[in-house]
Amino acid sequence: MVSYRLAAAAAAAGLASSAVAQTFQRLGGCPTLGCVFPPDQQDFLAGQFFDIRLEVHAPVNGSEATDGVPDENFSLTIGKVGEAAQPVTQFFGLEEPALEAWNFTWYEDLFAADAEAPSVVNVASKAYRRVALYEPGEYEAVLSYNGTNTTAYWLVRDIDEVRKTKNVLLFIGDGMTTNMITAARLIAHKQINGRYQSTMAMDKFPVLGHQMTHSLDSFITDSANSATALYTGHKSSVNALGVYADSSEDPFDDPKVETIAEIFHRIWNGHVGIVSTAFIADATPAALTAHTRDRDQYGAVIDSFIHGIVNYTWTQWSGPDVLFGGGAEQFCSPDLGGETYMDLDYYNVFRDAGYSVISNNTELQAASDSERVLGIFSVSNMAKWLDRNVYTDNLSDQENSPDCLGNDATDQPGLVNMTLKAIDILNTRATANGSETGWFIMSEAASIDKQMHALDYDRALGELLELDDTIKKSIAHLTELGILNETLIVVTADHGHGFDVFGNADTQYLNAQTDDRAKRNAIGSYQESGESQYINTGNLRYADSFFPSNWDPRYTLAQGLGAHPDVRENYQVHKDGPRTPAVNITGFASNDYFVNPKDNPNGFIINGTLPTNAAQGVHSLTDVPVFAMGPCQETFGGVYSSIDVFFHIASCLGLSRPNGPDSGSNTTVPVGSGAGTGGQGGHHGGPGNWNGPKNGVPGYHQYGPNAPRYGGRGPWKQ
Amino acid sequence: MVSYRLAAAAAAAGLASSAVAQTFQRLGGCPTLGCVFPPDQQDFLAGQFFDIRLEVHAPVNGSEATDGVPDENFSLTIGKVGEAAQPVTQFFGLEEPALEAWNFTWYEDLFAADAEAPSVVNVASKAYRRVALYEPGEYEAVLSYNGTNTTAYWLVRDIDEVRKTKNVLLFIGDGMTTNMITAARLIAHKQINGRYQSTMAMDKFPVLGHQMTHSLDSFITDSANSATALYTGHKSSVNALGVYADSSEDPFDDPKVETIAEIFHRIWNGHVGIVSTAFIADATPAALTAHTRDRDQYGAVIDSFIHGIVNYTWTQWSGPDVLFGGGAEQFCSPDLGGETYMDLDYYNVFRDAGYSVISNNTELQAASDSERVLGIFSVSNMAKWLDRNVYTDNLSDQENSPDCLGNDATDQPGLVNMTLKAIDILNTRATANGSETGWFIMSEAASIDKQMHALDYDRALGELLELDDTIKKSIAHLTELGILNETLIVVTADHGHGFDVFGNADTQYLNAQTDDRAKRNAIGSYQESGESQYINTGNLRYADSFFPSNWDPRYTLAQGLGAHPDVRENYQVHKDGPRTPAVNITGFASNDYFVNPKDNPNGFIINGTLPTNAAQGVHSLTDVPVFAMGPCQETFGGVYSSIDVFFHIASCLGLSRPNGPDSGSNTTVPVGSGAGTGGQGGHHGGPGNWNGPKNGVPGYHQYGPNAPRYGGRGPWKQ
Repeated sequence: MVSYRLAAAAAAAGLASSAVAQTFQRLGGCPTLGCVFPPDQQDFLAGQFFDIRLEVHAPVNGSEATDGVPDENFSLTIGKVGEAAQPVTQFFGLEEPALEAWNFTWYEDLFAADAEAPSVVNVASKAYRRVALYEPGEYEAVLSYNGTNTTAYWLVRDIDEVRKTKNVLLFIGDGMTTNMITAARLIAHKQINGRYQSTMAMDKFPVLGHQMTHSLDSFITDSANSATALYTGHKSSVNALGVYADSSEDPFDDPKVETIAEIFHRIWNGHVGIVSTAFIADATPAALTAHTRDRDQYGAVIDSFIHGIVNYTWTQWSGPDVLFGGGAEQFCSPDLGGETYMDLDYYNVFRDAGYSVISNNTELQAASDSERVLGIFSVSNMAKWLDRNVYTDNLSDQENSPDCLGNDATDQPGLVNMTLKAIDILNTRATANGSETGWFIMSEAASIDKQMHALDYDRALGELLELDDTIKKSIAHLTELGILNETLIVVTADHGHGFDVFGNADTQYLNAQTDDRAKRNAIGSYQESGESQYINTGNLRYADSFFPSNWDPRYTLAQGLGAHPDVRENYQVHKDGPRTPAVNITGFASNDYFVNPKDNPNGFIINGTLPTNAAQGVHSLTDVPVFAMGPCQETFGGVYSSIDVFFHIASCLGLSRPNGPDSGSNTTVPVGSGAGTGGQGGHHGGPGNWNGPKNGVPGYHQYGPNAPRYGGRGPWKQ
Repeated sequence: MVSYRLAAAAAAAGLASSAVAQTFQRLGGCPTLGCVFPPDQQDFLAGQFFDIRLEVHAPVNGSEATDGVPDENFSLTIGKVGEAAQPVTQFFGLEEPALEAWNFTWYEDLFAADAEAPSVVNVASKAYRRVALYEPGEYEAVLSYNGTNTTAYWLVRDIDEVRKTKNVLLFIGDGMTTNMITAARLIAHKQINGRYQSTMAMDKFPVLGHQMTHSLDSFITDSANSATALYTGHKSSVNALGVYADSSEDPFDDPKVETIAEIFHRIWNGHVGIVSTAFIADATPAALTAHTRDRDQYGAVIDSFIHGIVNYTWTQWSGPDVLFGGGAEQFCSPDLGGETYMDLDYYNVFRDAGYSVISNNTELQAASDSERVLGIFSVSNMAKWLDRNVYTDNLSDQENSPDCLGNDATDQPGLVNMTLKAIDILNTRATANGSETGWFIMSEAASIDKQMHALDYDRALGELLELDDTIKKSIAHLTELGILNETLIVVTADHGHGFDVFGNADTQYLNAQTDDRAKRNAIGSYQESGESQYINTGNLRYADSFFPSNWDPRYTLAQGLGAHPDVRENYQVHKDGPRTPAVNITGFASNDYFVNPKDNPNGFIINGTLPTNAAQGVHSLTDVPVFAMGPCQETFGGVYSSIDVFFHIASCLGLSRPNGPDSGSNTTVPVGSGAGTGGQGGHHGGPGNWNGPKNGVPGYHQYGPNAPRYGGRGPWKQ
């Protein structure tokens, strides 16, 4: 058959080349003046809920200037390719929604930003809420406006509804690349004559893949954007969680796509666990339940964990069994400095919903396996492995206790503790009363990324080794529980940082030199790189684990990122806590970063490769690895898009409903005798309607003033 | 059973920790004063030829000082673990070789090098030539000297002798990483809304693996070292080709290990093709037949291609069917400036051996498929894809014609042309007269590495795209020939460079700024990275291929390596030919590199991260990808050592002889009816003997004066 998708590709390329500045885009996913979200070339899981947003743009000034009046009489038709199309309302059985109108501004390029000359766009728009496509195949969505069309080709993948795994354990090493895994192996595993005597737990996985992280509208992604791709199968934009980003100010009205956690819960009544070493409102955990264009809406993210989405008709959601991480500031009462949604004490909100609330590792170990548990163990991001295990003095004077009373959170669990407990709870609850619903746990090693941003290579690699240790112990624990063979384990990342090791540094020699060029002669490459001196002797707290025994050897790793602010490197461990490589010291410019005078004063300076308002390193392009083992593992080999991680997991969990919303009731969970709860479906084409302000309080947090977006570059989210 | 290998690991670690300076090593693979080569923890293919070298060291001064008199009464016993050991001569049926003696010097660390205070070591040594182990299992080789022992545990892998593929096509992207593949995909393949509309040929391979490149004695490898691991299954040292590096001055007396090409030729009479875009004496092609501790012995490398190793009893070798690449300077008569082995005209040497000799793409296309062909297409490395196809003026004034007459080599083939022709010739010759011997071709994209060294990202990515195009066209050609299903295709690299892309650069904005910090504000990350503007339109010479149509867009890639000399970046294509980022401009220091004043004068400066005597970037640590398709593909998944690439290919080709030298005669080549030629074996334990100077001319090129090795850092080989 003719590939309509390829035809669409050619058409879109032609249009794109007419844009004045392709980098600062009027609106990602919309190269023409008519926008359809989901946009062209998107794939869908059969039965997955999504919203449709249409926008017609009328630029008032700038390179695309029109009369400034958007055509309000636009319309959308949908049909399978080669079949008759229907108006969208008829196709989905919807009522026509209200017309919306707004305007927005943007800068076309850096020259326009410097000149503070924004382009203004008037918008007419409609949104169709919570629809789904079931029948596999290619669909054509045609927006007609101003006598022209914008066509989006959508593909419902032909995936059967057979469930192949009972449980899924998804590990995300945030920002983790193959290069970092190689470096972590080098410092934690012994080699003799080039032969490793032990290897990483990841290295032992039978199936290896690479996923391409290119986002909807930029080739470098942030963690919100990439988590959306991994969890929903839909590429999105920087800062967006579970939505396509529209141009409206409201960060909560953007068109949503249903996540793996939501679908699994809806179809199978599956149990969900969320674990992260970040503040738990951070993008990677948030994207499992939040739907907002602005990842900074932390309070609303926390609310979504327990209530799901309530301002629009959306999928049912009743909270995870386990929510473990940092970020007490989004839970504590505002009286204690909390910055919470609706100014509520979210510890109490969770308690009122029946959660046990715990706040340290001792309570974690003691917690019942049969209750739902909220565990918030620190203000902000949790302590790093290196500080919890080696430089423990750095746990003091942090004033980060999760009760927000200003004490130190000195009894924080590690990712191992949180993940093993999550497995125990999920396994207990998902099998209670003969249930066979299964579970899905996402466990994130967040500070691989956060410490790579800070160019604190030691801490980043420590976090990566803790992730690997968690994987190793999780496999052992699943084996003990007798459920390893019914659990798909996937380890991947959401994006990279341009990191590698290029030799060693003789720190004794470097420290003895007095000028920058002489210090650089301490770097040894090739044969002079020698062997790692971080030799593991297994004598740390994790006695049976692989971590360096000496983080401060004479010969360290010469390593770094290609993308960085001005820095001073001495390639030595930061014993006093996480690194701050660059600071704003000039005083007269608000975002003008130079080398931090307190960072590595004995090192040599490397001036930056990033804009001078960047204080940290940034994400990189590289494909990231995927390791898989367990039922369905074979689907994760080779090279594919980030969205395929979603489709593979969804397929393994039997979440596709190609035969319509009512199918699936006869489908059983593999392994074990219990039947699944069957697909609850949701009616084909439920009306998309705005339910009005939630809890009687008007609106959500606003998306800030109508300032031009893309107003200069950085600082960026992580 | 008890793992003796682990016990050995613990013992060796204890010894290593007593060394004063682990980085500058007295001798790689020998942490004690008694050295056994092959050293501890090495694996062998059953029946693979190798030499044994023993050394007893007596340091005269320095941290390990002794009386300076090495024990000459050392002895070696060998036996399977758990069985009685025998003296080495008895075990292999050898006569006792002559005792050798020499001394060498080394610097213990950078302070010693600065002080010019070398440590001197007196050595007593013996070498046992061309032995082999057949019976799978663990062996213990114990060197006794001075009342103590050095034990090496060796493993003969238990691999059956069943042949699973008829042909092997091995592609090596020198220095190629996953990060680079990602960048190449971005500039050459169209995406719409985050979805690639086409992907790389590599991306389509069904099996993906990662290989760990850690070398015998340093964690950063060079290409000689890593090629040895890939071709022999034995880790080696920087600059070493097909040998373990001993401490003697002679670069040709080091203990050899038989290569995949040699074994395939010996056992199956298999046909071999060697293709590279480098000068053909360069490390990656050289390592298929050369055995020397010094990769710079270019003349001897060329001789090894046609004559194999003749100064010692070694495996039979009668030359490849195809040898294509650059490097005329090692072929032309010295009268024309050639620097050849024995001052011979090597074009004539090859002609005399029956080779057709060709010198340009026209002759390549016209060459007979039934003759052996030597194709040398330029002096030095061959022209880059970007210069052959886009900036063609750069082919002029190179004075690099392969006849060494000083004309320009303007009609150079690309890797595609050379590889497709190699397939035609190998396929014709390997099937002539009903033969079913099969073939092995190694095709190297050498200048991915060479241009990454030069920080010339555009040219490096162009070379990578040419490699991918070669893979694509080779698959199509094998399909046309009807031999795709009997050909194992493996694509891998030998090491990485710490490269990644971190955003875009608005070159128009960058060029309009006048100071370095302002220029950096042209870099866009995350959402500002936008979409690639190198959009492929397929209108280049390779009309059906994927290359950028515009190498000079306004928005380019912001990219780079973490390891570099002082550089000035403007992220714009170098239209005048390959880049030279740093030069020695101070005049008073012989190796003191600064930014090249002619390179990117409108860019911003980044001071280096490497020693100031480094003019280029250096290799990095990262695991590199392995893509496999065809018979036996399944063995290449997951994460493994670089040596496993050898063992997997050897296993697929049926090269293991676990039942002794005379087995294998009944083994047939898969696919097709002809029987293999059977293993020719070679007698178990042929005497190791020095055959004296070759061709009546005394000695080989010497290994230079007895200057201390490790005398300061860099410059390094690639």
